[in-house]
Amino acid sequence: MRRILMHVGPSVGNYEVLLRMVRDNVGFNSPEFLESMQNSLDGVSLLFGADKSYTQFIIPGGGTSVMEAAATFLQENDRILVASNGVFGDRWREIFRRYRVTVDYVNVVAGESVTGNMISERFGDRRYRMGFFTHVETSTGVRSQVPEIARELRKVSDFVVLDGVASIGGEEAEAAKWGIDYFVTASQKAIGAPPGAGIAVASDRLMESIPDKSLAGYSLNLANWMDPMESYLSGKGKYFATPPVHTILGLSYAIDLIREETMKRRVERHSNVRALLADGINDLGLGILAKDGFRSNTVTGVLTGDLDARGLISECFAHGVEFASGVHPSLAGKYLRIGHMGWVTENDAATAISVLRNAIRSIS
Amino acid sequence: MRRILMHVGPSVGNYEVLLRMVRDNVGFNSPEFLESMQNSLDGVSLLFGADKSYTQFIIPGGGTSVMEAAATFLQENDRILVASNGVFGDRWREIFRRYRVTVDYVNVVAGESVTGNMISERFGDRRYRMGFFTHVETSTGVRSQVPEIARELRKVSDFVVLDGVASIGGEEAEAAKWGIDYFVTASQKAIGAPPGAGIAVASDRLMESIPDKSLAGYSLNLANWMDPMESYLSGKGKYFATPPVHTILGLSYAIDLIREETMKRRVERHSNVRALLADGINDLGLGILAKDGFRSNTVTGVLTGDLDARGLISECFAHGVEFASGVHPSLAGKYLRIGHMGWVTENDAATAISVLRNAIRSIS
Amino acid sequence: MRRILMHVGPSVGNYEVLLRMVRDNVGFNSPEFLESMQNSLDGVSLLFGADKSYTQFIIPGGGTSVMEAAATFLQENDRILVASNGVFGDRWREIFRRYRVTVDYVNVVAGESVTGNMISERFGDRRYRMGFFTHVETSTGVRSQVPEIARELRKVSDFVVLDGVASIGGEEAEAAKWGIDYFVTASQKAIGAPPGAGIAVASDRLMESIPDKSLAGYSLNLANWMDPMESYLSGKGKYFATPPVHTILGLSYAIDLIREETMKRRVERHSNVRALLADGINDLGLGILAKDGFRSNTVTGVLTGDLDARGLISECFAHGVEFASGVHPSLAGKYLRIGHMGWVTENDAATAISVLRNAIRSIS
Amino acid sequence: MRRILMHVGPSVGNYEVLLRMVRDNVGFNSPEFLESMQNSLDGVSLLFGADKSYTQFIIPGGGTSVMEAAATFLQENDRILVASNGVFGDRWREIFRRYRVTVDYVNVVAGESVTGNMISERFGDRRYRMGFFTHVETSTGVRSQVPEIARELRKVSDFVVLDGVASIGGEEAEAAKWGIDYFVTASQKAIGAPPGAGIAVASDRLMESIPDKSLAGYSLNLANWMDPMESYLSGKGKYFATPPVHTILGLSYAIDLIREETMKRRVERHSNVRALLADGINDLGLGILAKDGFRSNTVTGVLTGDLDARGLISECFAHGVEFASGVHPSLAGKYLRIGHMGWVTENDAATAISVLRNAIRSIS
Repeated sequence: MRRILMHVGPSVGNYEVLLRMVRDNVGFNSPEFLESMQNSLDGVSLLFGADKSYTQFIIPGGGTSVMEAAATFLQENDRILVASNGVFGDRWREIFRRYRVTVDYVNVVAGESVTGNMISERFGDRRYRMGFFTHVETSTGVRSQVPEIARELRKVSDFVVLDGVASIGGEEAEAAKWGIDYFVTASQKAIGAPPGAGIAVASDRLMESIPDKSLAGYSLNLANWMDPMESYLSGKGKYFATPPVHTILGLSYAIDLIREETMKRRVERHSNVRALLADGINDLGLGILAKDGFRSNTVTGVLTGDLDARGLISECFAHGVEFASGVHPSLAGKYLRIGHMGWVTENDAATAISVLRNAIRSIS
Repeated sequence: MRRILMHVGPSVGNYEVLLRMVRDNVGFNSPEFLESMQNSLDGVSLLFGADKSYTQFIIPGGGTSVMEAAATFLQENDRILVASNGVFGDRWREIFRRYRVTVDYVNVVAGESVTGNMISERFGDRRYRMGFFTHVETSTGVRSQVPEIARELRKVSDFVVLDGVASIGGEEAEAAKWGIDYFVTASQKAIGAPPGAGIAVASDRLMESIPDKSLAGYSLNLANWMDPMESYLSGKGKYFATPPVHTILGLSYAIDLIREETMKRRVERHSNVRALLADGINDLGLGILAKDGFRSNTVTGVLTGDLDARGLISECFAHGVEFASGVHPSLAGKYLRIGHMGWVTENDAATAISVLRNAIRSIS
Repeated sequence: MRRILMHVGPSVGNYEVLLRMVRDNVGFNSPEFLESMQNSLDGVSLLFGADKSYTQFIIPGGGTSVMEAAATFLQENDRILVASNGVFGDRWREIFRRYRVTVDYVNVVAGESVTGNMISERFGDRRYRMGFFTHVETSTGVRSQVPEIARELRKVSDFVVLDGVASIGGEEAEAAKWGIDYFVTASQKAIGAPPGAGIAVASDRLMESIPDKSLAGYSLNLANWMDPMESYLSGKGKYFATPPVHTILGLSYAIDLIREETMKRRVERHSNVRALLADGINDLGLGILAKDGFRSNTVTGVLTGDLDARGLISECFAHGVEFASGVHPSLAGKYLRIGHMGWVTENDAATAISVLRNAIRSIS
Repeated sequence: MRRILMHVGPSVGNYEVLLRMVRDNVGFNSPEFLESMQNSLDGVSLLFGADKSYTQFIIPGGGTSVMEAAATFLQENDRILVASNGVFGDRWREIFRRYRVTVDYVNVVAGESVTGNMISERFGDRRYRMGFFTHVETSTGVRSQVPEIARELRKVSDFVVLDGVASIGGEEAEAAKWGIDYFVTASQKAIGAPPGAGIAVASDRLMESIPDKSLAGYSLNLANWMDPMESYLSGKGKYFATPPVHTILGLSYAIDLIREETMKRRVERHSNVRALLADGINDLGLGILAKDGFRSNTVTGVLTGDLDARGLISECFAHGVEFASGVHPSLAGKYLRIGHMGWVTENDAATAISVLRNAIRSIS
């Protein structure tokens, strides 16, 4: 049966993008790849709202890879600050616990967001090398107030880092305007390409501050990727490690489609879908995990009340839509997540609500 | 114009494999992915000649990712031994220079291979945590005598590690029989799937020795991947980081084709292609970089004599075959590399020789 | 924007089927084609409910081609009877006006069906070589009462012919039980394969009656296709004219999926979609062209009342669903047609209604 | 194993073209189809060398369909002339034997071509409605001297018809310059698209002469296709019968590629391949069926001497190249045909010869 994927990434896919991957004679030095890589790097600036004072990166792996690549900018005994809205906010802490830095941490209950006030009150008298937070928290669907938090973080931290894994491509993003020094995402979320690439922009100020003895290892050390990226940007190849060639053939076409749609209309589309889903969830008598005003365009956490969320997900799958389970440990089995990213349409929102309604009936 | 890719990975492709990636509704928890991941992990044992005393890993990234993941098994101040036949042998040293371990190193001139004797003579009186070497050196096409080197490494090192990036899928591999503790490869070489995944097997003895304070970071820390792999092997999902879903849909089909062909016939096919190429190169009056007896089934370095290798590569490209440039620094511009991996046929060997002949005429 | 095709054929498509067409080295004698042709011919019997007393045909072209191929069974001065429910019922008359036969004809107003009584009353005292009628009339969505009409036609006609172009694959079909001598369809409707092939079954009794001087021309003369079909059924090739190779690669896979789904469940699915659409159309305050009891599982004609149907279709297209315009000349601009064939799901029905609702709002 | 198709159509394929067919939401009224149809009709003029005094046709079916559609221009008791170089020249006679016209006929032994002299000598005192001949005879690989034969046919016949099924896309074609009134081909030969469409151009003079009582039936009656073609040319849809939608999506892209290559270079490419094959066949000690000066760019008949052609074809298939068997009844089992059409390259010619050599060795 034809099925729709409304998971949190890969999310709603697009065959046209996937078909671009079908090239059996394109390697990492072939002109088709070099054009796609150049085009993709160029598009990355658009996606993040980055200007020429940023360096773009597309590296093998995914969101966690580019998150960890922030180690490029750290040295032993640095102190960093993590403001977490959930599982993926916590991931910054998990990652840097593996490195010899000190991690200070603030978090909130599921569905809420750290605020600028919380940062200034709790960390106002300390100095940090980097401050990390999350644009859209995939585990709850919460979108944080980026300008406000970025402003407060800048007061206490040399550099401001933002996880845009679940936002880039579906939310407004203004790296330069907001003063984000390192902003990361992955290919398979709201950009709507296949997974396989971690994507990031880093400000010149940050790039110039790479320590001689950075903590980064080898593959995820952005210093190793600087020359290849510069080459790729000028349309030439330079080997450091094999890039995910076919993923990038798809990514490049996704970026073409994004340019054609324009980021403005793309964000509006995601926003409309969010609103339609919220209305429908309301009508079904279910709740939304993220507080009003903090609801993202890309992920909606649906509180399932008396219904077991996992059973409901199975039933929805049987009715033709795949949702994601809720992964916030404090709410196990009590919610599901609708991923509405990438190529999602208003019709998909209608389908999601219709399927939820039918599934609730079936299991009630 | 229809073109053939005879690069060193992605190498000769197969669009039947690539078409399997075209699924717009398959996420990392969808049944189609879970079946493909299970099937792929199962096939990994076949590819490496690993028995049940090995754990299989398929992680996002590529060959360098799984190489670096060997840090999982190291702790501060460990001493390791690297026996290098070229650029990718050296990569082990490059990687572990980023970690707080001591690296002892032996190498040879381009086209030759480290021998067991060299190891016993130079390192016989030291003790190492891990000893690293390379099955097929991509930069030169040299295949090392694995059983002999493994035997000598075992005498001086607790664990033996082998880089099979350029060999697995095209060369005989016997992890268990040869006593390799950690054996790595990537999806896009002789296995013939798209790039995006690092693949490895680790012996139980090695897995049981993971230090409490291992040097590995987060994404490339195999301890983080153990539970997901166990789940995937039993057909269930478990999230640590998003796998390269579509790459693995392709990988799984490549493995189906490999099972159908049998590893024995697959190795024979690669070996026949090697022999046909060697004869043809001889007839053209060109040389082969790797010494006789050390020529791999998957990469042939062609010494171009008076001809500029880069110009010859361009001309061959114009005639419809893409070769790789020679990357060994001691021989810049003096050789090219023919990748003959994955889905290569004897007809491709004939084409390669015919194109070389025509290209030489064109530029002479 | 992702769009759904709910046209009358090609109708709701399936990428999995289309991807099977992507074979650049399969010709009309290649084993992959021969297997697909054999499998398709075998599946044709299942689709039509034909037993071993029928010969199957798959020929280049489409529905009109196999309709016209009925000329194979006619000779000069034959008299035939056409019972028409609309534009495609009339097509039988249009076709045979080009041949030297006498055509008697009965028809009804749009939305109704010829009945058995109408046939017995009007034609009871004449004798016909062939009697033609339509299972599902694509122009109106009317499904005729096949057993009753077939019974009456048999009383006045040597052979009974049924147009199943819009029914086969989505409606119950029982060629043998109903006593249909020639039953035709096309690849791109409820079977869900791409267009390019006309498909038919002919009873032994009919095949044995092919006149020495049949009126058929060359390409659409089934006598020319008998040997090739017999060869194909036994897995061997035999050239008469080049078959639509790639269409048949897709068709064969569609038939595999149909076997997996079973015809029973497939008909139920189409029937459920019909019912959901009817309820939704009702709720929107619109009418259905076909009388109750005569509504097909595959095409629904929607009477748009005061709204201009063409404008509504455009608006629905802008909202992501492509419907077909109404083509019955008596109702120009007054209705649209929803094609719900092939791979349509209940979710598509919900989407169709949602889009209609939104489109009506937009243009009201 | 990767295999190359060097059959006579579908011939050497191109999966870039095939991938364009993978659209699950494109029907015969969708904008993507309408653009492709318009583009294809536009490209048809280029392919045939037709100017604005010609009408283009693309209809469901294939080469035989458009051949038979010449009946549109005939009426009862017309006399026609067929000049045949082999099986497909004879096909004109086979087709029109089914219609009430008188067919005069001239032919030659396999490998030769009818000449202008033969026509003037044998038919100089009669008058014909239409004279039919063949550009490239698929059964033998003979290319006729079109300008000379066309000139002689025009002396005895009102209209001149040329079968370009095996030539268009690989041979120079000049409908207007040569004064061809009806010139036909199919999608799957040297144009390099999938099979499913018959393609033709007809001169204004011919179009204006369509008799009131033409002999054509319904589906292959070009009078029924005139309005749809005019609509399609202006970018709008008009239904007569369902076109092979996906075939035409592929055809349109093939035409884009042809424009990019230019017809001049495309013909040169085919001509080079022909010459390379001829040299190779010579070197192998085999003969070529077509006389020198009459060898086509697209099909080469290879006389296999003492070797059974069918066994040789099987052996070549096992070595990775599929050739076509010889179908001229006078030479059964004594030759094979190499199709070198569409996307064939000089490397394919080298492969064909290499495979023939290896296959001869294997069976000798």
